[in-house]
Amino acid sequence: MDNVAAIILAAGKGTRMKSGLVKVLHPAAGRPMIDYPVTAARTAGATPVVLVVGHQAEAVQEHFRAAEDIRCVIQKEQLGTGHAVACTREALSGFDGTILILCGDTPLLRTETLEKLIEFHRAQRAAVTVLTATVNDPYGYGRIVRDDSGAVLRIVEQKDAAPEEQALREINSGIYCMDAAFLFENIGRIGSDNAQQEFYLTDLVAMAVRKGLTCLALCCDDAEEIMGVNDRSQLAEAGRILRRRTNRELMLSGVTIIDPDQTYIDDGVAIGADTIVHPNCQINGRTVIGSGCVIENGVTISNCRIAGNCHIKAGSVLEDSELHEAVAVGPMAHLRPGTLLHAHVKIGNFVETKKIIMGEGSKASHLTYLGDAEIGRDVNIGCGTITCNYDGVNKHRTVIGDQVFIGSDVQLVAPVTVGRNSLVAAGTTVTIDVPPDSLAISRVPQVNKEGWRLKKK
Amino acid sequence: MDNVAAIILAAGKGTRMKSGLVKVLHPAAGRPMIDYPVTAARTAGATPVVLVVGHQAEAVQEHFRAAEDIRCVIQKEQLGTGHAVACTREALSGFDGTILILCGDTPLLRTETLEKLIEFHRAQRAAVTVLTATVNDPYGYGRIVRDDSGAVLRIVEQKDAAPEEQALREINSGIYCMDAAFLFENIGRIGSDNAQQEFYLTDLVAMAVRKGLTCLALCCDDAEEIMGVNDRSQLAEAGRILRRRTNRELMLSGVTIIDPDQTYIDDGVAIGADTIVHPNCQINGRTVIGSGCVIENGVTISNCRIAGNCHIKAGSVLEDSELHEAVAVGPMAHLRPGTLLHAHVKIGNFVETKKIIMGEGSKASHLTYLGDAEIGRDVNIGCGTITCNYDGVNKHRTVIGDQVFIGSDVQLVAPVTVGRNSLVAAGTTVTIDVPPDSLAISRVPQVNKEGWRLKKK
Amino acid sequence: MDNVAAIILAAGKGTRMKSGLVKVLHPAAGRPMIDYPVTAARTAGATPVVLVVGHQAEAVQEHFRAAEDIRCVIQKEQLGTGHAVACTREALSGFDGTILILCGDTPLLRTETLEKLIEFHRAQRAAVTVLTATVNDPYGYGRIVRDDSGAVLRIVEQKDAAPEEQALREINSGIYCMDAAFLFENIGRIGSDNAQQEFYLTDLVAMAVRKGLTCLALCCDDAEEIMGVNDRSQLAEAGRILRRRTNRELMLSGVTIIDPDQTYIDDGVAIGADTIVHPNCQINGRTVIGSGCVIENGVTISNCRIAGNCHIKAGSVLEDSELHEAVAVGPMAHLRPGTLLHAHVKIGNFVETKKIIMGEGSKASHLTYLGDAEIGRDVNIGCGTITCNYDGVNKHRTVIGDQVFIGSDVQLVAPVTVGRNSLVAAGTTVTIDVPPDSLAISRVPQVNKEGWRLKKK
Repeated sequence: MDNVAAIILAAGKGTRMKSGLVKVLHPAAGRPMIDYPVTAARTAGATPVVLVVGHQAEAVQEHFRAAEDIRCVIQKEQLGTGHAVACTREALSGFDGTILILCGDTPLLRTETLEKLIEFHRAQRAAVTVLTATVNDPYGYGRIVRDDSGAVLRIVEQKDAAPEEQALREINSGIYCMDAAFLFENIGRIGSDNAQQEFYLTDLVAMAVRKGLTCLALCCDDAEEIMGVNDRSQLAEAGRILRRRTNRELMLSGVTIIDPDQTYIDDGVAIGADTIVHPNCQINGRTVIGSGCVIENGVTISNCRIAGNCHIKAGSVLEDSELHEAVAVGPMAHLRPGTLLHAHVKIGNFVETKKIIMGEGSKASHLTYLGDAEIGRDVNIGCGTITCNYDGVNKHRTVIGDQVFIGSDVQLVAPVTVGRNSLVAAGTTVTIDVPPDSLAISRVPQVNKEGWRLKKK
Repeated sequence: MDNVAAIILAAGKGTRMKSGLVKVLHPAAGRPMIDYPVTAARTAGATPVVLVVGHQAEAVQEHFRAAEDIRCVIQKEQLGTGHAVACTREALSGFDGTILILCGDTPLLRTETLEKLIEFHRAQRAAVTVLTATVNDPYGYGRIVRDDSGAVLRIVEQKDAAPEEQALREINSGIYCMDAAFLFENIGRIGSDNAQQEFYLTDLVAMAVRKGLTCLALCCDDAEEIMGVNDRSQLAEAGRILRRRTNRELMLSGVTIIDPDQTYIDDGVAIGADTIVHPNCQINGRTVIGSGCVIENGVTISNCRIAGNCHIKAGSVLEDSELHEAVAVGPMAHLRPGTLLHAHVKIGNFVETKKIIMGEGSKASHLTYLGDAEIGRDVNIGCGTITCNYDGVNKHRTVIGDQVFIGSDVQLVAPVTVGRNSLVAAGTTVTIDVPPDSLAISRVPQVNKEGWRLKKK
Repeated sequence: MDNVAAIILAAGKGTRMKSGLVKVLHPAAGRPMIDYPVTAARTAGATPVVLVVGHQAEAVQEHFRAAEDIRCVIQKEQLGTGHAVACTREALSGFDGTILILCGDTPLLRTETLEKLIEFHRAQRAAVTVLTATVNDPYGYGRIVRDDSGAVLRIVEQKDAAPEEQALREINSGIYCMDAAFLFENIGRIGSDNAQQEFYLTDLVAMAVRKGLTCLALCCDDAEEIMGVNDRSQLAEAGRILRRRTNRELMLSGVTIIDPDQTYIDDGVAIGADTIVHPNCQINGRTVIGSGCVIENGVTISNCRIAGNCHIKAGSVLEDSELHEAVAVGPMAHLRPGTLLHAHVKIGNFVETKKIIMGEGSKASHLTYLGDAEIGRDVNIGCGTITCNYDGVNKHRTVIGDQVFIGSDVQLVAPVTVGRNSLVAAGTTVTIDVPPDSLAISRVPQVNKEGWRLKKK
């Protein structure tokens, strides 16, 4: 099997996005739009992948900085698709095989479709194969005119289409498979003698036909795959379709998603069987969730590792944290980056954690802030406990041993250590280390002034 | 009118659910799927209801343990629908009348449809009446072949269907009404001489026709009613349809639901007229809500009784609690089980309650935990108040009299009582009882060290 | 161009709403339904706008109290649309020109459609022009019978329609343009000699035809525009369509709305380009949001002014507040009315503010209540800080100078001032003013009772 390379057109500004950000970097379902055709091309075996960049070229290049199989070529002026492809000549010099030409703004294209396109193109020994779709309303698109054998005769633009051509419902996707030799032999011959004075890639189809080369079209089953994103309404629609695919795959693998239309799971998130995801959750980034978990409504999870049988209650926000087996969080808790909760830990409502380790079975049930702390096993953190980790300049650590009981409304002024099995009385401001097995207390005796309230009035 | 009994087939594992839980116990719109056909059968007058259970038989039996009208019979091996029905012979011995045969995985079937089916079956004195539906894409379903009179000639499976039969769009739902005598006389005669070597209930139709008995079909208006749930994508779809029905009924009765597609109200929840339910609320279980309430967005309510004119603000979570007239809760409050709030109580943001009674007009407006407490009327609970109800071993009670004013950041170390009309100063740790009309205070005098911050730097 | 006036029929109770509130005051997408036709009529140039009110006339009048171009006339008994229009005779006496007749319960009608209707009516010099729509299921609606020239011959009600008329799919919207002179000359001649004994406006069409006057119909492109709201299910549907329009307009102007079907933005809210709105947000009232902001999921914003580059994190609730450039709020923060946050302020999780000013760069990161306070620049408010602003009778102010550092769990008993650059130690109850550059502290020395916990057990 011969080589495949891909050219992805990503130079356009995307004027209708009305954005300070170049179109292809706008995210759909959590990832920049350009990632989708790049991933599809790679998975279909294309190497290298050549991006034609133009507007905000640096930003696009930066986004792919770490990707060794991606080369960016700069199209200084946007003179049409033909010109864009011509810009790749040097980057692909010496490449001999099949070239995929994709658009940076079609995030819905499936790998399977590209694979079919390549296979069809090769099996038929075509010079050019265009990916097409059949739509109900073809207005505005280039129509595919085929001969009796099914081969492509030409692609007619809307404004040039005769009435019987306007009735054709098979449209050009702008996605092609081409023989590299044919492509680079002819790309320089495209002219710009047209209304827009642009170089059009579709001219290659006409050239191939004139030369008597095989020029074919493969119609994809699902027209939505070739949908281009030109404004934010289409961006939202693309996001919706991508999420629907992800959710459907998760459901078929054994995840209960109560309402897949209102569940926002990024592509790439892994979730175990028999986990239940309630509506209005966002599960983002590189999150991995085990089996048998319950994720209640309105929860946001970003880049977390969550083991099995965890229960994340309503409205909680979890970021860059790790939860071991059977941890309970929330409702309305906030785990900030660097939180590591061992098995059976319980974090209750209105609790915030940051850069902490909490040992097995420990609990912080309410209204607490734990930051920069190392907490042992079976520790009870009372309501209203605060690790005073910040002195206005630096952050300091709090260390709490196993079996410690911290009473309510305790302030732990870090750096400070509470030894194992100690008890800190309610209301104490802990400023010096507490030895193990001790009681720490700072308390003023309570005074009751009887009748005071009567005199007051 | 003669008797009706129901047989519900609930023995299958539901392999495509990819679950550790048997299919019929998966919840749709808050209730296990099996509850829906059971309820429909009961409401249509069926008694007894015989469940044919197999996979996780104990779990299904346990679910219906308290239901006296339900008998479970065990189908040890899943040898087909005919075999499943045959297993009920003993449980229904002596029953004489009409037998409904339902599927445990069709939660969308309406009682009204069953009633029509029974009535039609009886009026026509049929031996067998099959419930059918007309669908656009009948592929994969058994087709209903009728004669000129409309009577059923046979049911043809997909793989056996001739081209003209494949074009038929009326399909078998797997739901039947049968004459008990006919059923049990013939169920034993079904063979398993087919590709799957299973006993098929549809063979009874063929038998009835051969015997010249009346065999009819009733086509239900709404094809979605007979939708079977086989994977979690279909489970989600069934849930969506069930919620839509519930929400529609509530709206027509006078409840404003801002966005019924994003509102999750369990079947059985009652809500009064002129109550407004904002999007993304979940209202679950046996919750009853009065008239004129506002339930803001993202609120979760489970098993609560809420009187009229209450205002539940955004993001709040309420569980097993009771709210009298005109109570205000939230935003972002958490009422845990055992909370009883009398009229005009106000619970503000970041407040958690558990097992408390709060008297008329009392307030806890911010950042407070009230657990195991009895609070009188017109009490003001200051911000940051904590009932220290847990000593590491036991929970203790706090009692607060009428008209008490608790200042901010007060800890009430239970068991403790604050007498009526007393005031507890801000920052006090209350460890001994406070008599009525008193001031309780534990406070260190504040020291200002002037210029300290300049020296520090 | 001659004058336009509008008559809007708003007297009906709306029985199917099952409400204590008159139908036209029920909100759709954040505004009472009646506001939409009133705004459309005004924008199309109608003045005055005459509302025919009846049920809860006072409430409707009160709603428009401040609107000088609106006159309300009372229809004491609801005797039909003809009678309702007749009630406006006095209010419009002397008016000479074109009269729009609208319904108070059609919130989806667009201004553009009214403008087309008026233009068409005038250009054709019609006596009566009825707005129509073509629908798939016309059952129940009055059908438009046209002659060969397209002029209206008559409007036939469902019950009177001959079979060939029942097949007509063009229906009457109940919305008209009429010549004022024709209208008031004939409105008194409508009879009530029909089944309902009501006076029907459609009789005017018949009269115009009999008199040989021009009677036309303009069919609007989008049938949903003339949808009347009669129950809460239709109310929800109208809200959905209105929100979809608002969201689409915002997206096309450069706002990213991740999921427009689950985003609730009131008509009239302004949002800058490159702001991202996550799902399940509610943005209400007169809110203005700048460019480059991120509004995370589940956020509620009412009547706020938010400058550019702000970040409002998940679950936060903001009311009547003002945020300058690059402010960060939440997650799960609550800004109550009167909050003014200068640039680069950070409000963290479980923080509540009310009637405060916070200077540039100041922070309150966790578990804090700030009410009735004036806070300077670069102030750090520690976790658990509480402004004790309420003494049970009055609210008092707290003033905190620039560069102050408030430690954790501090209570500021107002009225109180903390001078610039001072530090308040953790756990302090501040009851007297703190001079600038000072340390304020009220603390009991901590005692560690070693071995205490071993003896206890």
